[in-house]
Amino acid sequence: MNHWHINEDTFDPTLKHILSQETVFTIGNGYFCTRGTFEEGYPRDNVATLLYGVFDHIPIAKEELANAPDWTRIQLFINGERFRLDRGIILGYHRSLNIRQGTVQRSVLWISPSGVTVRVTSERFASLDDEHVGAIRYSAKIEDAPGGEPCEISVISALNTAEGNYDVLHLETVDQSNVDDIQWLHCETKKTLVQIAMATTFDSETTGFTKEILNSDIAPGIRYNGVLQQGQTFDATKLVTIYTSRDAVNDPRNAAIQHIQKLFADTKQPYDQLLANSREAWNAFWERADILIVEDKEAQIGARYNIYQLRINVSSHDSRYSVAAKGLTGFGYRGHIFHDTEIFMLPFYTYVMPEVARNLLIYRYRLLDAARVKAANNGFQGAQFPWESTLSGEETTPSSIIHPETGEVIPVLNGFIELHITASIAYAVWRYWRVTGDDTFMEKFGAEILLDTALFWVSRVEEDPERGDYVINDVIGPDEWHEHVNNNTFTNYMAKKNIEYGLAIIDWLEQHAPEKAEQLTSKLDLSEQDFSHWHDVANKIRILQDPQTGLFEQFEGFFNLEPLDQSKYHNRTDSYQGILGVHAIQKYRVIKQADVLMLLTILAEEFDEKTKRANWDYYYPITDHDYGSSLTPALHAILACELGETQIAYKLFMKGALVDIKNLRGNTPEGIHAACSGAVWQALAFGFAGLRNEDGKLTTHPHLPENWSRLAFSVQFHSKELPVDITR
Amino acid sequence: MNHWHINEDTFDPTLKHILSQETVFTIGNGYFCTRGTFEEGYPRDNVATLLYGVFDHIPIAKEELANAPDWTRIQLFINGERFRLDRGIILGYHRSLNIRQGTVQRSVLWISPSGVTVRVTSERFASLDDEHVGAIRYSAKIEDAPGGEPCEISVISALNTAEGNYDVLHLETVDQSNVDDIQWLHCETKKTLVQIAMATTFDSETTGFTKEILNSDIAPGIRYNGVLQQGQTFDATKLVTIYTSRDAVNDPRNAAIQHIQKLFADTKQPYDQLLANSREAWNAFWERADILIVEDKEAQIGARYNIYQLRINVSSHDSRYSVAAKGLTGFGYRGHIFHDTEIFMLPFYTYVMPEVARNLLIYRYRLLDAARVKAANNGFQGAQFPWESTLSGEETTPSSIIHPETGEVIPVLNGFIELHITASIAYAVWRYWRVTGDDTFMEKFGAEILLDTALFWVSRVEEDPERGDYVINDVIGPDEWHEHVNNNTFTNYMAKKNIEYGLAIIDWLEQHAPEKAEQLTSKLDLSEQDFSHWHDVANKIRILQDPQTGLFEQFEGFFNLEPLDQSKYHNRTDSYQGILGVHAIQKYRVIKQADVLMLLTILAEEFDEKTKRANWDYYYPITDHDYGSSLTPALHAILACELGETQIAYKLFMKGALVDIKNLRGNTPEGIHAACSGAVWQALAFGFAGLRNEDGKLTTHPHLPENWSRLAFSVQFHSKELPVDITR
Repeated sequence: MNHWHINEDTFDPTLKHILSQETVFTIGNGYFCTRGTFEEGYPRDNVATLLYGVFDHIPIAKEELANAPDWTRIQLFINGERFRLDRGIILGYHRSLNIRQGTVQRSVLWISPSGVTVRVTSERFASLDDEHVGAIRYSAKIEDAPGGEPCEISVISALNTAEGNYDVLHLETVDQSNVDDIQWLHCETKKTLVQIAMATTFDSETTGFTKEILNSDIAPGIRYNGVLQQGQTFDATKLVTIYTSRDAVNDPRNAAIQHIQKLFADTKQPYDQLLANSREAWNAFWERADILIVEDKEAQIGARYNIYQLRINVSSHDSRYSVAAKGLTGFGYRGHIFHDTEIFMLPFYTYVMPEVARNLLIYRYRLLDAARVKAANNGFQGAQFPWESTLSGEETTPSSIIHPETGEVIPVLNGFIELHITASIAYAVWRYWRVTGDDTFMEKFGAEILLDTALFWVSRVEEDPERGDYVINDVIGPDEWHEHVNNNTFTNYMAKKNIEYGLAIIDWLEQHAPEKAEQLTSKLDLSEQDFSHWHDVANKIRILQDPQTGLFEQFEGFFNLEPLDQSKYHNRTDSYQGILGVHAIQKYRVIKQADVLMLLTILAEEFDEKTKRANWDYYYPITDHDYGSSLTPALHAILACELGETQIAYKLFMKGALVDIKNLRGNTPEGIHAACSGAVWQALAFGFAGLRNEDGKLTTHPHLPENWSRLAFSVQFHSKELPVDITR
Repeated sequence: MNHWHINEDTFDPTLKHILSQETVFTIGNGYFCTRGTFEEGYPRDNVATLLYGVFDHIPIAKEELANAPDWTRIQLFINGERFRLDRGIILGYHRSLNIRQGTVQRSVLWISPSGVTVRVTSERFASLDDEHVGAIRYSAKIEDAPGGEPCEISVISALNTAEGNYDVLHLETVDQSNVDDIQWLHCETKKTLVQIAMATTFDSETTGFTKEILNSDIAPGIRYNGVLQQGQTFDATKLVTIYTSRDAVNDPRNAAIQHIQKLFADTKQPYDQLLANSREAWNAFWERADILIVEDKEAQIGARYNIYQLRINVSSHDSRYSVAAKGLTGFGYRGHIFHDTEIFMLPFYTYVMPEVARNLLIYRYRLLDAARVKAANNGFQGAQFPWESTLSGEETTPSSIIHPETGEVIPVLNGFIELHITASIAYAVWRYWRVTGDDTFMEKFGAEILLDTALFWVSRVEEDPERGDYVINDVIGPDEWHEHVNNNTFTNYMAKKNIEYGLAIIDWLEQHAPEKAEQLTSKLDLSEQDFSHWHDVANKIRILQDPQTGLFEQFEGFFNLEPLDQSKYHNRTDSYQGILGVHAIQKYRVIKQADVLMLLTILAEEFDEKTKRANWDYYYPITDHDYGSSLTPALHAILACELGETQIAYKLFMKGALVDIKNLRGNTPEGIHAACSGAVWQALAFGFAGLRNEDGKLTTHPHLPENWSRLAFSVQFHSKELPVDITR
């Protein structure tokens, strides 16, 4: 099936559409991503190249991924007239993201204001084989010139330091110069002083063109000048190498220069070889990661597009950072890491790229000390992970935001009381281990996370002496529209699981690695008496469930909230929270996203079908699937499949699969929905294929949508690749 | 006396010092100012060219002056090595601001890393004669080259769009290209869409050098390449013309291009003529504005430096904007207008440049409607001017700030309850009229301000039925360390004066312009009954004064505040508020700046010497003259002179005169203290010369400091120039 392309066949100059498509046409390789802005620029575009883990400090939200110099810029002048899509006349336009090989190609047929017809083509990629390399092939052909006159052509390739995160400029040039035809730019982030170096070449063999090096601290360039007759073409290739002081190199500047010199050591034109190597790397990736959906082109492309995102936004080897809410594709959420990674994306990595899953969990392990500080500062024991996390592990959720227009101060509570992320991390550690059998990881990293997060929960619960159970009051659950709630079912159940994981792992360690068991119990000051108390807490934590029907109450008092008459809002274009306000929404029985249902989904094996059905029937209708969280429509599909609601599952799946391609939420300009990409994979694997890890054996329980004839993919299970192939 | 230079004879690489000197060496002409950064740049410099009234929107503080493209950039490479002061060896360094003619000259003797000795000189100015023009003369001479080898020289002159307000970038390029040797750059502010266009040339007649145009959206440049033998010199001149869409031109881009073409129409080298014309304009200015201080070089230079600031930071003709707290010299206070202009600077403009004073008051007149909206929104009548003001007249004081590190939300109350600015504006209108006799202004603009501000106060006061008087509760007075105070003496007394001005002007109008009187009373809906009530309020507004001693109480309860033992803090380097905190300082009897004493100074004729002495003795010792407000040390000098405390007056005057030259407050990097400049002039005129407008006659009551033999200057009084010349 050749459903591998996201195509754009007309140019829509609506700014919102342009910005959204910039996100959609992002290329990347996990070391960097570059948004799909045009080489020649466009007014108000959001040009960005974001590097995995390269942050700069900012007020309030502490730090954000710092926009690196733009390496894509190429300006074309025909008889002195600038080629840009807001000028002249566009006769033809085509752009295509080739997901299979990670390239974006664009072809424009354009008439300049003075009447020259030109075909401009470009192709770009971030090498998946050689992650420090980006490349562009660029051409301009004179199709027709008035009177057949020759045209003066000027083409300037540049690196541009003047692109900020929106208006905020993070870079200052340290130095810039050239080594022969190689231009280099060495800059640093203003506050964190991360060194970023780029080296670039721009090569053309078009005859009769002169080449000049244009040194400049701000936008160093390489220019070709020459003349084209009607029918003639100028073409050139642009390469860039990128290194930072976070890489294991002594001198990023020299590393970038030497790397690009090496590319030219064997050939005068490395572009083709680089592209071939990158394609090869993409081939290898797709052999592991592709999911085949037969006879549903839109679903097929959507699935692959989301898997593509899960690849380009994560490093293949770096465990010092994780996958941000928007990956490296936009400025939204500033590159911060949420529980989105552990709950939504980790299953994909665990089953498809376990070596990456391991790194993402080691990222959390590295930040255990910071999580201990957070717990201690709040008066608790153990490790409490921050709601938003960057490199240091300190809490980076802004404590409040000031409304940019009204000046109103809006408190943001998530960093203080949205606790469940700590259990999400323990859950992901446990699942990773059960799927991979990676005992080394568990002994070295995972066990300490499980124990110290369990300890946090045991210290966080409060005993209710009247009822003889344990409660967790004053939290925010996954449904963030209700704040300061008590005994959120999701939080309490996950805390219970977290404590059980801790207890199970200490048993396992005592059997398999008694020295490690001793070391950890000593380090964390845990005794048999403590573990006995842990058992008590895990058994008696308050879970609000009706024993007859199996219905869970989302939190204490949820059932008594006012019902919302959703029929009044059927033409809405905003969430219920947006319409009713942050305060008013709290009193209504309507929720942002899966909360109880997420629990039933991620711990599917713990609940029977009757319980699932009862809760589905209650919660599904009161969830804002359209304008609430983007995270859960696709995730809901899993439970829908289990309950035989395959058509609903399909509808929810497509809302997730197309969320960015079609900008369904309106916020794709700020970056892709990475958690949703993870949920799309889960919907396919755990929903439609019904993949389950049952007592160490993988099983499937297929629920194919009517219009699918086949669903096929592979997973890694205990270091073995297992094919899943479901046909009707 | 040739005391006209601010000199710097060594290069101090301390960043804080460099940033402060950038402010000190600012050039300007009221249309634009350019900070004294180096042409070749320096790491972490704050490059800025700010244009009078060119704002962009920002969150919270609403708008700020938008940094324009840097027109000063010139990069020099010798044998490929970059000349910059953080590299190589500096053998000699001299920089000088010539206040007399508005030029900055710099000469550096420098050894490049590879051993070439070069003398680099530059001279720059913003033409005072032709306000759209800036110019630089630049030269590099090879003093010595290893082995006498010739040196390859590359010099790039550029316009740079990548300089933000600190990290915030306000500009986006609309288009850029060249017309022959003239490069032009057309950009716009991102939010307010103000068009800014610059055209630039870079001309050298050095033989053997090639010249190239380097088009670039981000940093368009002009480059010279060539070879210099030992002893040879490259020299060049750079010109820029600047226009914006706020100017009365149809097309700023063409205006900039045509203007620079016109400069070259008569001569190949316009630099010398431009400089001569600018000097001529400065001559004319200094003939009106110079103050001669004989036998005190430091005071002489300090005085002239502050007068220079009062000229370069104000437009000679534009009444749509006013002089900001930091003028156009830095990013501090974002270009917002405070009462600093009316109370501190207006006296200089009124007596020396009355046509400018008139424009600054018309600026307020233009914003009367916005002031009416503010009053109405607060439930009052008349016109309430905003504490911070920009172009629209809406309140631009941020309502709160979030501490960039702690995330703590700190409310800023000044925009809500620091009311006295409304009376300051009325006071300035009244004084301007008394000094200039500009009845046309008063009839057309001033009267409406006086009446509508009076109306505000009459509606703002509350009657105290018990005591039968009127009170103004819950304000901040000039001493901003005490918030939510009742019956601040300064506020109440100024409100009383404001109402009296309103009553006086309606009488005057009825006599001299009865139609205008009728028009205004009709427009503002004022009746005889209202005016009778105004009389009652003005007579009975509560003024807290001891009838025996004449001592005023700053506000109700001030005398009961805890005294602060200042001797405990004699080694402090921060204000008492900084040390004790925003909350704790409120309970202490220590003040940020003149409050009661400011009243006694600006309304000197209303109070007898006994009253002044009693209040001086009380308030002078409890004022933080070193780390409180920079505004009032120099202003205190006036009262000190009246009381015969000439030595104290001199000390306070010098604290003001040198505040920026010596960076006494530590915050000169963010811009000069414009109000202090105004206070310095007042200290000289009203303090040491004792100038008074007594019943329409100017008198002097000299109090020369011991070390001064002569103090001489001129003032404009009722359209006549009157010399003041005081000798010992």
